[in-house]
Amino acid sequence: MCQLLGMNCAAPTDVTFSFTGFAARGGVTDHHADGWGIAFFEDKACRLFIDHQSSATSPIAEMVKRYPIKSKNTIAHIRKATQGHIQLENCHPFMRELWGRHWIFAHNGDLQDYQPFLTGVYQPVGTTDSELAFCALLQGLRKEFPGSQPGLDELFPALEKLTREITQAGVFNFLMSNGQALFAHCSTRLYYLVRRWPFSTAHLVDADVSIDFAKYTTPEDRVAVIATQPLTDNEVWTAFEPGDLLMFQHGEVIARTNVPVPQAVLDKLRDPASDRSASAPTPVVQEPMPATLDLESDDAAAFES
Amino acid sequence: MCQLLGMNCAAPTDVTFSFTGFAARGGVTDHHADGWGIAFFEDKACRLFIDHQSSATSPIAEMVKRYPIKSKNTIAHIRKATQGHIQLENCHPFMRELWGRHWIFAHNGDLQDYQPFLTGVYQPVGTTDSELAFCALLQGLRKEFPGSQPGLDELFPALEKLTREITQAGVFNFLMSNGQALFAHCSTRLYYLVRRWPFSTAHLVDADVSIDFAKYTTPEDRVAVIATQPLTDNEVWTAFEPGDLLMFQHGEVIARTNVPVPQAVLDKLRDPASDRSASAPTPVVQEPMPATLDLESDDAAAFES
Repeated sequence: MCQLLGMNCAAPTDVTFSFTGFAARGGVTDHHADGWGIAFFEDKACRLFIDHQSSATSPIAEMVKRYPIKSKNTIAHIRKATQGHIQLENCHPFMRELWGRHWIFAHNGDLQDYQPFLTGVYQPVGTTDSELAFCALLQGLRKEFPGSQPGLDELFPALEKLTREITQAGVFNFLMSNGQALFAHCSTRLYYLVRRWPFSTAHLVDADVSIDFAKYTTPEDRVAVIATQPLTDNEVWTAFEPGDLLMFQHGEVIARTNVPVPQAVLDKLRDPASDRSASAPTPVVQEPMPATLDLESDDAAAFES
Repeated sequence: MCQLLGMNCAAPTDVTFSFTGFAARGGVTDHHADGWGIAFFEDKACRLFIDHQSSATSPIAEMVKRYPIKSKNTIAHIRKATQGHIQLENCHPFMRELWGRHWIFAHNGDLQDYQPFLTGVYQPVGTTDSELAFCALLQGLRKEFPGSQPGLDELFPALEKLTREITQAGVFNFLMSNGQALFAHCSTRLYYLVRRWPFSTAHLVDADVSIDFAKYTTPEDRVAVIATQPLTDNEVWTAFEPGDLLMFQHGEVIARTNVPVPQAVLDKLRDPASDRSASAPTPVVQEPMPATLDLESDDAAAFES
C-alpha cells in the first residue's frame, strides 16, 4: 500500500518537520520507495512536486525538506505500488482543476475491478485505480454542481455520497483538498492530531528530531496533521473510525460523517496481518499530551511552526 | 512582457545548459523577475515547477539547474507582469488535462479586452489573460474532437484555427505541448535553432558558460530550442516570421503554417522601441554555425546533451 500525510492549518505553515519523518518511510524506516509526491496550496495556487525516486533519496524531497513552503493545505504521499507501474504519471498526489480551483488527491488503498463510467471531462493520465477514483469524484462533484462551487456545507454531503459509491470497490483511504479545506476519508487506517496553544515539543518516530513548537507559534496558530501512521511518539494521535470522512479547515475538524465500510473491506481489517482491528479502534483523544522532551534539532528554526 | 523557452528533442534531454542562461534573465541580465516556471514532460507524466521568486534567486530554480531532468518536451517562462498580480497562481506555465494527457502552456504577450466564452470545462485559477487563452484553446480543441485525441496532423489545423481567433485580441507568442509535440506561435518575437549531428560548442549569452555538445551526443540526437531571444552567441538562431505557428517533434519542425498577424499587432512591431521589425525579419538559417569556442564549464557533464 502507500502512506498519506496531510496538514491543514489556521495560518500558512511549513511541513518540513512532519515531512522529514514521513519521507524517511520512503526507503529508510519503511519500504514505500516506489515514488512520492507533495502538493502545497498557497491561496488558490498549488505547487505539486512528484518524483519516481524514493522520498528518502530524491533530490526534490531534499529541496522540499530545506525550502520551507508555507501552506494552509498540504498533501503528501509515498507509494508502494499495488496497481500501475512505477512510473512518474502514477505518482500521487494528482491534480486537476474544477470550478476555477486546483484540486489535489492522494489515495492509500486498493480498488478492485473498479471501472467507473467517465464522460471524458476528467480522464486519467496514468494507470492507477487512484487516479480513476479521483476523476470519478471530480466528475461527480461537477455533475452535482455544474455551475460554480457550492459552499463547503453543500460540498461535504456530495463528497460523502460519492465516497459511498467508490468505497464499495475496496480500500479507499484518501486525502483531498481544493485549498480551502482538507477532506480525509478512512477505510482502514488513518490518524490525526490537532496542535494548538499552548504548543509543546514533538519528537519524530522516524528520525531523532524534536521541535518545541511553543517557540515558533502564537495563540492563533492551529495545525491539524493527518497521517497513515502517527509521525511523532510523544503526542496522542486520534485514530479515525473505519468509514470516517472528516473535513478540516483552519486546523480543526469542522464536519464529520461516517460512510459504512463494506463487509469485504471490514474483513480486511480483521486480517491478523493488520496491526489495527475494526473491533478495537484506538480511543479518540483530541488534545495533545504535554511535551516530554526538551531536545531540539539544530534545524528547528526551519521547521513547521 | 515575459520570456519563453522551449525544448523539443529526439531523445530525452536535460535543459540545464539553456535554463542556466534563461534563468539569469529573471533578475541578473534582464528584469523578468515577477515569477517563473518550468514544465518537463517525461512520457505522459509532467512535472511543473513554479515560483514567485525571480528565477535568478529561487531555490527551486537552483534545484532545476542542478538536477538534470531529461525530457523530450520542456517549456519554461519568466514573467514580467502585464496583467494579473504577482501571485503564484499567475506564474506560467499552466497545466490542464485533455484526452487523458497533460497539456502545458506559456504565453508572452498581452491580450486586450480578451473575454472568451468559457463553458466551464476549463476555468482559470489566476487572473491572467494567458490562462484565459489557454482555457479557450483547450475548450476549443475538446469541442473539435470531443471523444479522444486526434492525430497530430488533425490537431495542428485545429490549433491554427483557434490561434487565429485569439490572436485578434493582441500579442500572442506562446509555447504549448502535450508531451508528444511542441507547438510554438509567434506574434512578435520568437527564435529557434535545431542542434544536430555533428554537434559543436555553444556559448551562453547570459553567462560565461560553454558546452561542447559533441562530447555528449550521438548521431541520433537532435534538439530544437525555441526562445524569445537567442540564448547562445555563437550559433545561428532562426527568427520566426510574425504569425508563424510551428509544430516540433523529435527535435525538428514537422509542420508550419502562418496565421496572419492583425494590423494592430503589426503596428506594435513597427514601433521603433521594438528591436525587431516585421518588414526586416532575421534570415532563416537552420544549420548551426561551426563551434568557435573550446572553453567549457566545469559543470558541462551535467548539462543537456
